[in-house]
Amino acid sequence: GFPLVLIAGPCVIEDEEATLRIASFLRKLGEDLGIGIIFKASFDKANRTSISSFRGPGMEEGLRILSRVKEQVGLPLLSDIHEISQISPAAEVLDVLQIPAFLSRQTDLLVAAARSGRVVNVKKGQFLAPWDMANVVEKIEESGNDRILLTERGASFGYNNLVVDMRSLVIMREMGHPVVFDATHSVQLPGGAGTASAGQRQYVGALSRAAAAVGIDGLFWEVHENPDAARCDGPNSLALDHLRPMLEQILAIDALVRKEIPSHD
Amino acid sequence: GFPLVLIAGPCVIEDEEATLRIASFLRKLGEDLGIGIIFKASFDKANRTSISSFRGPGMEEGLRILSRVKEQVGLPLLSDIHEISQISPAAEVLDVLQIPAFLSRQTDLLVAAARSGRVVNVKKGQFLAPWDMANVVEKIEESGNDRILLTERGASFGYNNLVVDMRSLVIMREMGHPVVFDATHSVQLPGGAGTASAGQRQYVGALSRAAAAVGIDGLFWEVHENPDAARCDGPNSLALDHLRPMLEQILAIDALVRKEIPSHD
Amino acid sequence: GFPLVLIAGPCVIEDEEATLRIASFLRKLGEDLGIGIIFKASFDKANRTSISSFRGPGMEEGLRILSRVKEQVGLPLLSDIHEISQISPAAEVLDVLQIPAFLSRQTDLLVAAARSGRVVNVKKGQFLAPWDMANVVEKIEESGNDRILLTERGASFGYNNLVVDMRSLVIMREMGHPVVFDATHSVQLPGGAGTASAGQRQYVGALSRAAAAVGIDGLFWEVHENPDAARCDGPNSLALDHLRPMLEQILAIDALVRKEIPSHD
Amino acid sequence: GFPLVLIAGPCVIEDEEATLRIASFLRKLGEDLGIGIIFKASFDKANRTSISSFRGPGMEEGLRILSRVKEQVGLPLLSDIHEISQISPAAEVLDVLQIPAFLSRQTDLLVAAARSGRVVNVKKGQFLAPWDMANVVEKIEESGNDRILLTERGASFGYNNLVVDMRSLVIMREMGHPVVFDATHSVQLPGGAGTASAGQRQYVGALSRAAAAVGIDGLFWEVHENPDAARCDGPNSLALDHLRPMLEQILAIDALVRKEIPSHD
Repeated sequence: GFPLVLIAGPCVIEDEEATLRIASFLRKLGEDLGIGIIFKASFDKANRTSISSFRGPGMEEGLRILSRVKEQVGLPLLSDIHEISQISPAAEVLDVLQIPAFLSRQTDLLVAAARSGRVVNVKKGQFLAPWDMANVVEKIEESGNDRILLTERGASFGYNNLVVDMRSLVIMREMGHPVVFDATHSVQLPGGAGTASAGQRQYVGALSRAAAAVGIDGLFWEVHENPDAARCDGPNSLALDHLRPMLEQILAIDALVRKEIPSHD
Repeated sequence: GFPLVLIAGPCVIEDEEATLRIASFLRKLGEDLGIGIIFKASFDKANRTSISSFRGPGMEEGLRILSRVKEQVGLPLLSDIHEISQISPAAEVLDVLQIPAFLSRQTDLLVAAARSGRVVNVKKGQFLAPWDMANVVEKIEESGNDRILLTERGASFGYNNLVVDMRSLVIMREMGHPVVFDATHSVQLPGGAGTASAGQRQYVGALSRAAAAVGIDGLFWEVHENPDAARCDGPNSLALDHLRPMLEQILAIDALVRKEIPSHD
Repeated sequence: GFPLVLIAGPCVIEDEEATLRIASFLRKLGEDLGIGIIFKASFDKANRTSISSFRGPGMEEGLRILSRVKEQVGLPLLSDIHEISQISPAAEVLDVLQIPAFLSRQTDLLVAAARSGRVVNVKKGQFLAPWDMANVVEKIEESGNDRILLTERGASFGYNNLVVDMRSLVIMREMGHPVVFDATHSVQLPGGAGTASAGQRQYVGALSRAAAAVGIDGLFWEVHENPDAARCDGPNSLALDHLRPMLEQILAIDALVRKEIPSHD
Repeated sequence: GFPLVLIAGPCVIEDEEATLRIASFLRKLGEDLGIGIIFKASFDKANRTSISSFRGPGMEEGLRILSRVKEQVGLPLLSDIHEISQISPAAEVLDVLQIPAFLSRQTDLLVAAARSGRVVNVKKGQFLAPWDMANVVEKIEESGNDRILLTERGASFGYNNLVVDMRSLVIMREMGHPVVFDATHSVQLPGGAGTASAGQRQYVGALSRAAAAVGIDGLFWEVHENPDAARCDGPNSLALDHLRPMLEQILAIDALVRKEIPSHD
């Protein structure tokens, strides 16, 4: 087994210096608590609810800023890609290529990401059953890449609501790849604010603890220096000063569960 | 805050001596691990999937057997009632009257149970939102009883499936009453076996740990000496020899979470 | 095959004279359009969202008023029963005993209703799959009664919302009993108004036409002289003057479909 | 108002001559029944459940075959596009560009399709509420194109199942664009066959009638000369010889409803 990792960062790259500050904060936090950190930030939000939503700096500028994070802060990088044409430049900078949930069934994108040789993190579609991810895994493995992360981020539950079925963490783990719990997207209320997704930041801690108690390999949090002013996913992002106590508790649960579940490695 | 309690016992009273043996086992387990035990067993399963399902010994004989559990084993008792006429005799023997999930909106049953003076445990209907339980609580409180337990046992998720929305534990706790997680009914697949409910015993541990990590006041498990031979809910019941290691882990999570969440009392 | 019937009336008996006026209106409407009418009204709403909701005149007074409807207006009667003790007096007055959706799995109530010899109309629970109703049918048939109606009234779809799965009408019809579509309860938003259920009266017409086009034997509508002032289910009740044009259209669809579907008789 | 149109054809182009035969059959059927036909066929199934599923002839060859359908049979053409790079060549041949349901939130694809000047048919994502489509419409309209079709194809309902919420047809119509009901995809059981989607062809007729009775502008059916041998979506495709009686009935319902609903034009 390998130890719990935290994938964290802002929803989208809003500002170069803020991005570096957040990354530095996370690196320090990881060192203090003894947990590996992967920095995440999107360079382009390609599927926002509304056409007038902020999308980010674009790929070229975004990858430049992420390169600075890697050089100056020294964290490995994860970001999401939406088109095959983005994979080659993104793979030069990123350590993990993430497939967004809505695109988790797009065969060509999965295959091209697999062939980049980078780790591929697939978010389970809100419309998929946990066991459906076995076909997704196969698409990547058959393309010659077995460095796969599988991420739970909630399932459609009626309209404008998601529910996290904690059974999915167990089911996806049996597929032989590390499982990540994306707590901040799991508390989104998709489309719930009319022209934007609403969110329920107040449940991120409870769901993160729950997932850790089930047994996960990674935790995914969107964070921000001032969530209420965030240009993307503010309602479900965490403020930086809330991270440490939440993470300490989760690491304690993880240690407990990891020790006791023989199947957890 | 008060410490975590385990509500456990067989789905239905099948046999007098087996019932006493299970109760003794649970009492010993509780003493060893330092956790309070409430013994649960139904005397009549009034809403089985099929008319030919085993229903139990009936109220009179069932209450007689439960009285023996109290006298000889010394555990407090919980059982479910389905009709107003059962409340008076049941309240003489039981410490907790349980309202089944399907009946969680039946005003007269709630009011009559409230007036018995006993603790009332209401299972949240599979068709209710967590916040809908505020109206259920009010029905009981307005009837002069504020000794209420609220139990999560899964929400309808498509056909023949339930999903546990862990947010519900937080939402119901804010109503000011202890919250119980019924892990063994939450893994039922209602009607999933044609003329019976199927179940997924393999997820009881994971969901129980998750709920403990969110923060609960009680855990509810159906147990059996030989689940595969159980006459009711076998597919989701736990074997007695599995209880101790699961419970130790849950108590450790509970201790961790209880210490850290100021709102947890 | 037998012709489409309309089950209609107010949610609850509010007032004796109004009840008779509504019944007279419906009888006239049925005669004009050549459709059989069954008058429905509840004498006691036993599972209202809130304890302070209006419940009705109670069984004794309610059955007295319903008897007057039968004598003076000459319509057959349907009402819902919630306890076994209500069945005997109700069966003296009513032609159809209705089992509420929440109680559709209560074996004793189903059996006792079956033994009354009256037609039994079971509303499919919001938590049941259509095929689960086969077990409900069996409970009634094995109790010696095969005069059964099966009613669709929506399935749980996330929180505070129902969805009508039109496949259910086909599936239940294959069980060999007439199928009713309860359009006005299908547009409820259960608990959606905090201490009451909200409703979407604007979709009753569309869903009723849809069900008729699939093929049904009965249509169920709650109606009121002034829905916005109704003491129960106002948001989903229909005003009397809207009934005729809606019903004419539905009868035309029914005639079309009935002629063309060989399996529709 | 404009008259009901049928969008029909095979799931994927399997064979050139068969494609032309099906198109000819549909043209003749449309002429006989007086209903406009748009021919649909995919050239590449980019999001099949399994990586080993048949995907089709590819874009270039597929568009060549579709051109022959237009020239020789004379039907307007609809096909789905999955990448921005496909839009320009596809728009030269196709009359309607279809955005697949999984991609209904991909802003760049919607904008690029809009700018092609072709009619854009967006399938509502299985994870979207009907009202969420207003944001999708805005993305297209703001890109200078108001020739939009909105298609219902079912909403996620638990795992491996879809449900058609007929309210969505009413809600989407209020957005001011024609609404299409995709009956054959609505009866899919996504992922329900392990490495493929299962389907319930037996409900296509009932759901199509229901949608027509609610009021639609287009009906979408996948058809095949031998559905059980189809290389894609066979379980939910219709055999050609079943189309005429189904369509006659639907046209009769449409005529009835169209006449009577003032808001239906």
